[in-house]
Amino acid sequence: MGLNHVYLTEAFLGRKSNSPSIEKLSFTQFPNVGLMTTYAADSYITDSASAITAMAAGRKTNDGVINMDPALKFKYKSVAEEARDLGYKVGVLTSVSIDHATPAGMYAHQPSRNNYYAIALELFESNFDYFGGGGFLQPQGKDGKQKDVYEIAKEKGYKIVDKIEDFLKLRKGDNKIVAINPILDSSKALPYAINRLRGANVGLSLADFTKKAIELLDNPNGFFIMVEGGKIDWAAHANDAGSVIYDVLDFNEAIKVALEFYKKRPFETVIIVTADHETGGLSIGYAGTRYEVYLDVLSRQKISYDEFTKVVNEYKSKVKREEAKLSDLLPQIKEYYGLEILSSEVRKELENRAKAGDKEAKIRLQLALNESEIEELEKAFKISMMDPKERPNDAKTYLLYGGYDPLTMTVTRILNQKAGISWTSYSHTGAPVPVYAIGTGSYIFNGYYDNTDLYKKLMSLIGKDPYKDNVLSSAEVRELVFSK
Amino acid sequence: MGLNHVYLTEAFLGRKSNSPSIEKLSFTQFPNVGLMTTYAADSYITDSASAITAMAAGRKTNDGVINMDPALKFKYKSVAEEARDLGYKVGVLTSVSIDHATPAGMYAHQPSRNNYYAIALELFESNFDYFGGGGFLQPQGKDGKQKDVYEIAKEKGYKIVDKIEDFLKLRKGDNKIVAINPILDSSKALPYAINRLRGANVGLSLADFTKKAIELLDNPNGFFIMVEGGKIDWAAHANDAGSVIYDVLDFNEAIKVALEFYKKRPFETVIIVTADHETGGLSIGYAGTRYEVYLDVLSRQKISYDEFTKVVNEYKSKVKREEAKLSDLLPQIKEYYGLEILSSEVRKELENRAKAGDKEAKIRLQLALNESEIEELEKAFKISMMDPKERPNDAKTYLLYGGYDPLTMTVTRILNQKAGISWTSYSHTGAPVPVYAIGTGSYIFNGYYDNTDLYKKLMSLIGKDPYKDNVLSSAEVRELVFSK
Repeated sequence: MGLNHVYLTEAFLGRKSNSPSIEKLSFTQFPNVGLMTTYAADSYITDSASAITAMAAGRKTNDGVINMDPALKFKYKSVAEEARDLGYKVGVLTSVSIDHATPAGMYAHQPSRNNYYAIALELFESNFDYFGGGGFLQPQGKDGKQKDVYEIAKEKGYKIVDKIEDFLKLRKGDNKIVAINPILDSSKALPYAINRLRGANVGLSLADFTKKAIELLDNPNGFFIMVEGGKIDWAAHANDAGSVIYDVLDFNEAIKVALEFYKKRPFETVIIVTADHETGGLSIGYAGTRYEVYLDVLSRQKISYDEFTKVVNEYKSKVKREEAKLSDLLPQIKEYYGLEILSSEVRKELENRAKAGDKEAKIRLQLALNESEIEELEKAFKISMMDPKERPNDAKTYLLYGGYDPLTMTVTRILNQKAGISWTSYSHTGAPVPVYAIGTGSYIFNGYYDNTDLYKKLMSLIGKDPYKDNVLSSAEVRELVFSK
Repeated sequence: MGLNHVYLTEAFLGRKSNSPSIEKLSFTQFPNVGLMTTYAADSYITDSASAITAMAAGRKTNDGVINMDPALKFKYKSVAEEARDLGYKVGVLTSVSIDHATPAGMYAHQPSRNNYYAIALELFESNFDYFGGGGFLQPQGKDGKQKDVYEIAKEKGYKIVDKIEDFLKLRKGDNKIVAINPILDSSKALPYAINRLRGANVGLSLADFTKKAIELLDNPNGFFIMVEGGKIDWAAHANDAGSVIYDVLDFNEAIKVALEFYKKRPFETVIIVTADHETGGLSIGYAGTRYEVYLDVLSRQKISYDEFTKVVNEYKSKVKREEAKLSDLLPQIKEYYGLEILSSEVRKELENRAKAGDKEAKIRLQLALNESEIEELEKAFKISMMDPKERPNDAKTYLLYGGYDPLTMTVTRILNQKAGISWTSYSHTGAPVPVYAIGTGSYIFNGYYDNTDLYKKLMSLIGKDPYKDNVLSSAEVRELVFSK
């Protein structure tokens, strides 16, 4: 969640005024603002594993590594583990899978973020009080032959709650809970929030999990909660601005829940909102639209890229390859993105209405597909209809579609560019990220610092020496299980 | 100068270590850091005129307008004029022409930033003490028939100093000076700093003008100086990362001069470093290089885009169109950018050396032109060799070259992308910009605020009511001359 992801959301909310303005989010109104560098030990562009190691354990490591040094010799104790050992109750929440790099950075120590099963085993060793959000990626290991995490949970005294009625029954005093959204996508993550716009049931929200976390964890010794809006990053990987906006808004709702608690206990609470890195190289500003921005067109998007890809694949599965034609999907492209081909009569009528000041007519004209865009869609459609094995695999194709469904990416790019929004990458970028903080001692988050400094600041807030060595000694280390 | 322009420069300086690190600039070490929104009254993407109006006069206006309201009915008094009327000495410095939008925002009030002659007339009415940097764009008006600014200067008691020996003779007590760099580019701006790398004489630097400003303006009543590193923006418009870096470094040198003064008078000085907007949608991160960044390749660039365009045009003027071939320019492309076509023998040798850890060999391999890049260069070269009138004028061509010389833009883009750097626009973008501040009262620049708030903060620092109406009454307004 880079600076522009936050700002785009604020501008999107503010777009309804007659002149450009922004509507601030809950956390951008926090009194303290910092800027944080994010580079890893082996690249100016960090991944989520090295980033969370820096923020949670104060050490630069290589991309892919969680709470270990680049040579994979030492394991580091995270600030969440320090908090646990000081008597705080600890919660870890995310909109992606609970074994993903960022939540794992709270409790795991692994040479590779992809050791999902080993990470899950560490989760159940953590003694943390509450986990919430997505599910497990390899519940029976990479080979599907290991002991199921549900069984392990039971052995370790954890309760996995994956039904909505059980979640609602959770009460203060319930402990060692792993609450999993009953509705998950294929990556065991919460569905994108934008899909609510078309009436999709996305289950519990990050705000729901956060509210429950505070209810369960509030106690006289204090609590430490990490809440990740992880799907903001995923949407940005796919360069899908609409999905970014609605997941930032969902994250904002979770922060609002935290703020309600803050208002009740302002002198005992600190809330820090930041990101592990920027994703996508997002800018409000595209060469083709120069100084113009049309955020209204984004309001027509009602689906996330992954769900639209399902629409494309469903069509593909139903039609004979030689009979497949783009025009069959144009109704869905209009329905979900507002993009359409205008007949010259309709165009004329809209132009007249637009001249008379009709805002809706202006938006529809801005959303009209031109010839070169239709060409791009046709080209992408052809590749989407191919078997994945047949698809071109060269550098130019990657630049266009980034490994995602070509038609989906083209629709998304056209919509973004019509809004005046553009991206430089399907990966993370090196941009420093903003830090917003409120509460007791939160002034220390002002200024310009490194992500390893965030650890020191967090340590000082939980009352631990920030310069204390946090290499786990063999006595301290529980039996850490490496991936099988 | 967006966040990424600053950070790219810091990463470029830090690249020499064995693992990624940054070397902080003078101003990024300031204790106070803020984030500032920049949108204009008529667009989420501001231009320099509306931006300086917001920062210097606290009002949102339309792009193109300087210190007037969007309806062009009122004129606003700038913070520099307020400072002057409070008895501060005032200096206005820039690396672009002294009548350009940002410096003009200190002393002019015009419906259009393009009224260069009218702006110059207002300059000589300002009674400011010292102007320094670039020259005048229309010294005899748009039609070349107006009274020369040199004559007007004399009448108004100003001395134009455009010889280096006269500049060096300037001493405390000299007043009403307009110091112009003896070496200017075709836009009356200081040449790009990067050209020093190939031994070009670029005359005085922004640091020289700043040093002189402090020498001339320091007095018991205080002084107010605005220093603009304006060519950072111009280089970013052309998506030329190398030129951005060296002009950020030159700007940094000017700030260092200010810091020397600050260190002598820490309790009487405030230094605020910010930008009017981001330009180019710069990211350290490009789809084609994913998580890799190769800043070393940028160190091979020794020329700015405008100077390389001169090389292209000189070649064009000397060769018959039908005999022009890209290979004639490959030696210069290698000399100025390090990009070259490697024979298979040389490539093999370099690969062996690279395997053995030879850093130079790695850089040369990264700089090697591949087939698709050579294709892009050939295509651009053909257009560069056309008469400007014959060149394609469609949207796709604009996306590729942004109205600049096609070959130059292609060389620059290839180099940037090989470094892992990418851009989204040839215009400004909507990104909030960082604010860095040091000195008495500078804590007020912490936080997240609008560019109109910057005016209020500046006013409070010079000791004026920030909420006072600053519409110029007819009695206050000197005879303001609109463009002829």
